[in-house]
This record gives sequence, C-alpha cells and structure tokens, in this order.
Amino acid sequence: MRILIPATSANLGPGFDSLGLSLGLFNEVSITKQSILSISVKGEGENRANVKKNNTFVNIFNDVFLSLTGENENFKFAFDNKIPFSRGLGSSSSVVVGAIAAAYHMAGFRVEKQLVLNRALTYENHPDNITPAVFGGFTASIVVKNEVHTQKAEILDSIKAVVVIPDKPMSTNESRSKLPKKISLKDAVSNLSCSSFLSACFMNKDYDNLKYAAYDRIHEYLRMKTLPELFKVRDVAYENGALMSTLSGSGSSFLNIAYRDSSSKLARTLALKFPNFRILELEFDNNGFKIEPKSKK
Amino acid sequence: MRILIPATSANLGPGFDSLGLSLGLFNEVSITKQSILSISVKGEGENRANVKKNNTFVNIFNDVFLSLTGENENFKFAFDNKIPFSRGLGSSSSVVVGAIAAAYHMAGFRVEKQLVLNRALTYENHPDNITPAVFGGFTASIVVKNEVHTQKAEILDSIKAVVVIPDKPMSTNESRSKLPKKISLKDAVSNLSCSSFLSACFMNKDYDNLKYAAYDRIHEYLRMKTLPELFKVRDVAYENGALMSTLSGSGSSFLNIAYRDSSSKLARTLALKFPNFRILELEFDNNGFKIEPKSKK
Repeated sequence: MRILIPATSANLGPGFDSLGLSLGLFNEVSITKQSILSISVKGEGENRANVKKNNTFVNIFNDVFLSLTGENENFKFAFDNKIPFSRGLGSSSSVVVGAIAAAYHMAGFRVEKQLVLNRALTYENHPDNITPAVFGGFTASIVVKNEVHTQKAEILDSIKAVVVIPDKPMSTNESRSKLPKKISLKDAVSNLSCSSFLSACFMNKDYDNLKYAAYDRIHEYLRMKTLPELFKVRDVAYENGALMSTLSGSGSSFLNIAYRDSSSKLARTLALKFPNFRILELEFDNNGFKIEPKSKK
Repeated sequence: MRILIPATSANLGPGFDSLGLSLGLFNEVSITKQSILSISVKGEGENRANVKKNNTFVNIFNDVFLSLTGENENFKFAFDNKIPFSRGLGSSSSVVVGAIAAAYHMAGFRVEKQLVLNRALTYENHPDNITPAVFGGFTASIVVKNEVHTQKAEILDSIKAVVVIPDKPMSTNESRSKLPKKISLKDAVSNLSCSSFLSACFMNKDYDNLKYAAYDRIHEYLRMKTLPELFKVRDVAYENGALMSTLSGSGSSFLNIAYRDSSSKLARTLALKFPNFRILELEFDNNGFKIEPKSKK
C-alpha cells in the first residue's frame, strides 16, 4: 500500500488549538509485508539517524496493528517525506494520522476517517493539525469526551498558499511552555470573535474578509519575537496582496494565503526579500490522507 | 413611516460579545411629522414614566436627524413594544438600530444597512446584538477601526426558538462589572474553539451539532448563579429535545433552539415546570429591521 498525508497549518490565525487547513504537500509512505523490518527514508529526515532507529510512524503503526490483529508482523517501510520537521507544518500529525490509517488498512479493516481521527487524538493532544490531515480543507474542531467533532469547508481553487519556511525550527513543546496561564478577557474576546468570524469566512468562501480576522493575541507575538524577521514577512506579504498572513502552527513557518493570480508574484517577492528562507507555493488539499492499495515502485 | 426591529439573542453560547441571532419578535414604531412632539407607548414599558419623559429612541432619532438635516423637527412617535426590557433579548439594541434607521428614512436618505450598523456601534459598544438586529439571521461580527464586519448565515425554518423569560431582570452593566479581568488560557481556548465551531455549524446549517459547542466559560456560570433556576431550565431543555440551550445576552432570558416538530412540546414542558417564567415560541428572523414607508393607521 501507499499512503499520502498532507501538510497542515494549525493554530490558524486566532484559532489557537482549533482551526486548521490542509496543504497540497504530502509525506508518502509505502508499506509492504516482508519477513524482516526495514526502513528507508528519502527527503526530509533522510540524514537523521534517529528517524530510522526509533521511527515514530513505525512505532504507532505497530501499536495499532497489534491492537487490531493481536499480532506483530514485519513490514518494509519506505518514506518519502516532503513536510519539513519542526516548522509548524504538521509533520508530527502527518506521522500519527498516516501510521494509524495505514495500520487499519494493512490489518484488513475499512479505514473510517472519523475513527482514525479519534484514535489520532490519543497521540496528539490538539485537534487542529490532525483534523485537516484526515479530512482536508479548512476545519474547525472541538473535542468532546475524547472524540473530535468537526465542521469542514472545502477550499476553492481560486486561492493558494505561499508558505515561508525559515532556516530555524521552533519547538512546539518548548514554546508552549512559555505561554501565559492566564490571558486578559479582552484578548480572549478578541481571539474568539476573530476565530468565529474567520471560520465563517471559510464556510462562506469569503476570502476577501480573512485579513480582518487574521490576528491572534494568545501566542503569535510571543513566538514571532524569537524570530523577528517574521514580522517583516507579514508586512511584505500584506503589501503584496496576501489575503491572510499568519504563523503556521507554532512556527517557525509563516502561512500566506493569496488569490491564484497573485500568488506567484507574492512568492517571488518573498523569495527575493528573504533569501535564507524557503518559499513554497502550494495548492490547498481538500481530501486529507489518501490510500492507494498498491504501492508504486 | 413604520419600522419593525427584531429582538436578538447575543453572547450566543460561547460567542461572548461576538455571535448573535435575530428573533421573530418585533418592536414597532410609527413616526409621523407633526407640529409638536408626542410619544405614546403600548406594550413593554407602557407603565414606565421614564419611557415617555426621557425616551432613548427619540433622543437618538433626534441626534441623527439633526446631524443629517441640520434641523430639529417634531414628530409623533407611537411605540408598540414586544421585546421585554432588561431580559437579554436586545431591547436596547432594537432602540438604537431602530432610531438610527428611522432618522435616515425620515431625513430622506436611503437607509444603508451597513451604515446604520456602524453608527449603531457609537451607541452600543458591542456588535453582537446590533448586527443581527440590522441584518437578521445568525451573525458573527468583529469590529475593526470602528466598523463592524459581519459574516451572516440565514437560519432555516426547520428550527424555532423557545425563549424562557424569567420574572426577574439582570442588569447588563452590573453583571459585566463582575466579570474577571483575566481568564485561564484553557477557558479562553475552550470558548474560541466552541465559538468557531458553533459559527461553522450555523454556516453549514448543521443544527444537530450545536449542542457540542453551546458552552461558555466566560460569563454564563457567573450570571446563572444569580438565578439558579436557569440551570434547571437548561437541563429540562436538553432532556426535551433542545438542540442548544444558552443564556440569552447577559440574561436573564434563556434561549433554546429546537426543531420545528418538537418546539411546541418543549415550550409546553417548560411552561409547566417553570410557571413563573414566560415562555415564547418564536420563529427566527432573517431580515433584520424593516421599514414600511406608510404607517398603518
């Protein structure tokens, strides 16, 4: 089998731990039964010893496979990773979602997306990356009694993502521990108002209004301070036609949304101004993970 | 002229100061030019001396009329009020919105809804009542540079409102002053997640999922504590088919949403269990204020 899992952009604008969307950039994993375990890695992570020695995808896959079949079996895993590590583009969530979905498939079960999502929540505490990785599109998620509830909007192909990927990572756990335990009521109300409005904009396909609600008062400033060039990225993006410009996940990447007819120009401008950062112009993904029964080899 | 302005339910669930919806219960005001000011009040407020002596509608109407025409003129105002005072059903906002819209009309201007809304914001600090009173339906609003931006969803006629109106009022200003200045990040994230999800449910017309996101952690508990019977109202509502049950505005009313085929039963049950409270079974309104050029009389 072959599974493709999309990159995702979570903590979308004011939607901390809640809103996310799915990007047309995929990690690909081919899995076949064989007598001994083998792991090969291409792309992101190919030079990290740890990715082979203690592979999170393989560990979760084996856990789930065992729980479903009662058996340990060996597989050949071939990773072709496109999602950068520790850049706020959902690399960890793609591993969790991909491993669970693949284990269901290899164990001979029908792969139910909602079931994969609920199980992913046991590995990944917040739903805002795993939900778009499962369903694609724009998603607003809440967790009720260990189950994820989702509202989804398809993203029209009139818009594209221009992602700015800095040369430095940000650690999610470390930066999360720096967040305040309490915030002002004013900031909380600003975030909830903007987040509700942003969610409605995506549902209504009203992309012109995204910019009014793109602001976060919970974590963005604290995290951007550790890489101040990101403030310039945002300014340049808005000066060059971005509909929305926001930290992706907990960073370090920045997600810019632009109309298709201006996204290339925006990407070129950002590439010129920030030569040390990687710029990717991406489609949005409306499907979430995809399984192809036969692996292409 | 005659103007009808709907009741509204703001602070909707977790959508503090942000989400609102418009109810099919209207204050009606007939206005005609005449040589001396006269005010008559029928319905809510008819026994309050102050409503005639220092009438907020008339004051705002005169302000706006003067600003538009440079002149003070006299009118006959006939109020037929259906929206209860100080019960969290948008009575004050209906006055603000109605007075502004009526003044534009009587001054000979085209009544632009967005303009009325922005002007209403100068009298009413938060957009969550005035926006649905202007546009109708479900609304998610944000304020940017003194302008209200709105995303709206029509409400399908498959659902109705069952409003529980206690015999005691709650004062908005007084209860607002009791709110904490800071809240926990956890509560803030809960509210923003639920509020975004709720907003998306209304946009997607997915009323079955409203109940998962109906909870507020900012003000509801503090306010309900002052009238503990409201906790019972909520329990009874959910036990009897409510899709969502939440404090309306800053109270004291409780808004319950139910499918049309179960709303009468819900209303009857609530009437039986809470004989001191008024129960209204209402349609939702999708239009906001309506002006009829000739007053019926």
